[in-house]
Amino acid sequence: MKEISKLMGYRESVKVVDATLRDGGLVNDFYFTDEFVKALYETNVKAGVDYMELGYRADKTMFDEDKFGKLKFCDDDYIRSIVGENDTDLKLAIMADIGRCDYKKDIVNRSDSAIDLIRVATYLHQMPSALDVIEHSANKGYEVTCNIMAISNTQEKDLRVALEELGKSPVDVIYIVDSFGSLYPEQLARLADIYLDVAAKYNKKIGIHAHDNQKLAFANTVEAVGDGVDWLDATYLAMGRGAGNCAMELLLGFLRNPKYNLYPVLKFIENYMVPLKEQGTVWGYDLQYLLTGILNQHPRTAIAYTKEERKDITEFYKEVVAQD
Amino acid sequence: MKEISKLMGYRESVKVVDATLRDGGLVNDFYFTDEFVKALYETNVKAGVDYMELGYRADKTMFDEDKFGKLKFCDDDYIRSIVGENDTDLKLAIMADIGRCDYKKDIVNRSDSAIDLIRVATYLHQMPSALDVIEHSANKGYEVTCNIMAISNTQEKDLRVALEELGKSPVDVIYIVDSFGSLYPEQLARLADIYLDVAAKYNKKIGIHAHDNQKLAFANTVEAVGDGVDWLDATYLAMGRGAGNCAMELLLGFLRNPKYNLYPVLKFIENYMVPLKEQGTVWGYDLQYLLTGILNQHPRTAIAYTKEERKDITEFYKEVVAQD
Repeated sequence: MKEISKLMGYRESVKVVDATLRDGGLVNDFYFTDEFVKALYETNVKAGVDYMELGYRADKTMFDEDKFGKLKFCDDDYIRSIVGENDTDLKLAIMADIGRCDYKKDIVNRSDSAIDLIRVATYLHQMPSALDVIEHSANKGYEVTCNIMAISNTQEKDLRVALEELGKSPVDVIYIVDSFGSLYPEQLARLADIYLDVAAKYNKKIGIHAHDNQKLAFANTVEAVGDGVDWLDATYLAMGRGAGNCAMELLLGFLRNPKYNLYPVLKFIENYMVPLKEQGTVWGYDLQYLLTGILNQHPRTAIAYTKEERKDITEFYKEVVAQD
Repeated sequence: MKEISKLMGYRESVKVVDATLRDGGLVNDFYFTDEFVKALYETNVKAGVDYMELGYRADKTMFDEDKFGKLKFCDDDYIRSIVGENDTDLKLAIMADIGRCDYKKDIVNRSDSAIDLIRVATYLHQMPSALDVIEHSANKGYEVTCNIMAISNTQEKDLRVALEELGKSPVDVIYIVDSFGSLYPEQLARLADIYLDVAAKYNKKIGIHAHDNQKLAFANTVEAVGDGVDWLDATYLAMGRGAGNCAMELLLGFLRNPKYNLYPVLKFIENYMVPLKEQGTVWGYDLQYLLTGILNQHPRTAIAYTKEERKDITEFYKEVVAQD
């Protein structure tokens, strides 16, 4: 009998990463109020969350500061204005997107920043650049993780090459990312095996970042914990691009480590997330995301369908099955 | 490596049961229009669904016919008015609820009814009555299944006794029922092992009926298929009591048997289910159901919270954690 997660106990090495502002920011162009950001920070501290991802550090020569909220850029001064000295157990993270971050200029010494962790997001074909950002960030003193995106559309042999390269790099954690929400738990388990082999060989940790296109983000995260994956991404009320992510409230309801606390999470959802949704910010599982998930496609067509407030799911079906 | 569901293939013995009208009827007191019922019937035929559960056969001396739609009672004449001779591959089912069905009077010979299958729903302490209904229904010529409800709150030894008794009865299928939506996939797998042992000994089939309190209804159904469970309950747009059930559209998107067809399901959802929801019928995953699910409680408090349109989830949390 598979006893995957030892439900009555817990693993000390498990870390929960709140990605609400970063993945959720993709839904509202990062227009979160300072009050929202500060309240979320304080909630994460109370809830025992291990890491909080604040947003991207996007290249300002590529992206217009007037068209996005502050967390698209995560200036160190702005972060400091929210977290002060961050004299807490909560560590802070930002994401560096390959090709969209001027890392040599914008990722400064860790001692000059409130940030603890750089999360590098890359496609497989960008690995050489990703390795450069990893090297740079590690040299500047940060913890570093790497998300290889869209792996459900890559060849396993190519993935293994990339994992070997990451194994030899100074990256601390390598993430399994189900970008399209297309993976079933057993496929996740197979991938976890591949990643965990590399982790054992090179003394790395493995993480999971799931999407909810098939309502499997939480289930896949549970599967991953049982398989030995330690770093778990979640977002409040599952806020995130398209179908959203693994919900923080589901995850903390599941984990047994007494350091985690569900109550402040519910309070934040009641006071901030539900109002955000009621004010018209749209995300979460719906039929259009299910279809791109089943078809293992990027959800961009489903996101457009959502934005246009279309209701003709059968027409959408015919459109997406024709996208070969 | 666990290769639970052989994703590239399928098992001929898998059966899909549409429980939309029966479990969904708990949400709207079975007030479905005849047009809706007929369109759903025709959709199930086109989609390749194996069984369609139409509703309950409730005792009219206990329940007022003026206070419920027709599918609370599923009179044979009414069913005939919808399905005619039912000259299709879709079989029809009704549920007999122990203590709420006058089965000796109301379950007549199969040859005089359009119904093929009697689904018996019972709590563990009602097993002697359930066995009597099973015996009666089998003698009248029906296929018979049995749902033992609320097993997440029973002792395993008691459950094993009940399963042995069912094994010796003429029941065809025994259902694993996650009434409270409290089970994680690995717990489901453990239960499936217990049920499948009995199935092997007595030549029965095993089914799964899941609830979505923790967004795991589909994931638990996928787990169950992989474990060898053959009968899978689902409902359109996950319509069902409280958090709802495993969604038909998720399930048919997952199963690989070419007899199943997702397109008519989407069409029915677009034309009938979405309008039903927009007209104010409420069901589906939400925070209150998550909490009763985590706590392994009956969702009645969460259903009341929903009906009262409460938004104070933190107050609700304090109420339900106090319910010992």
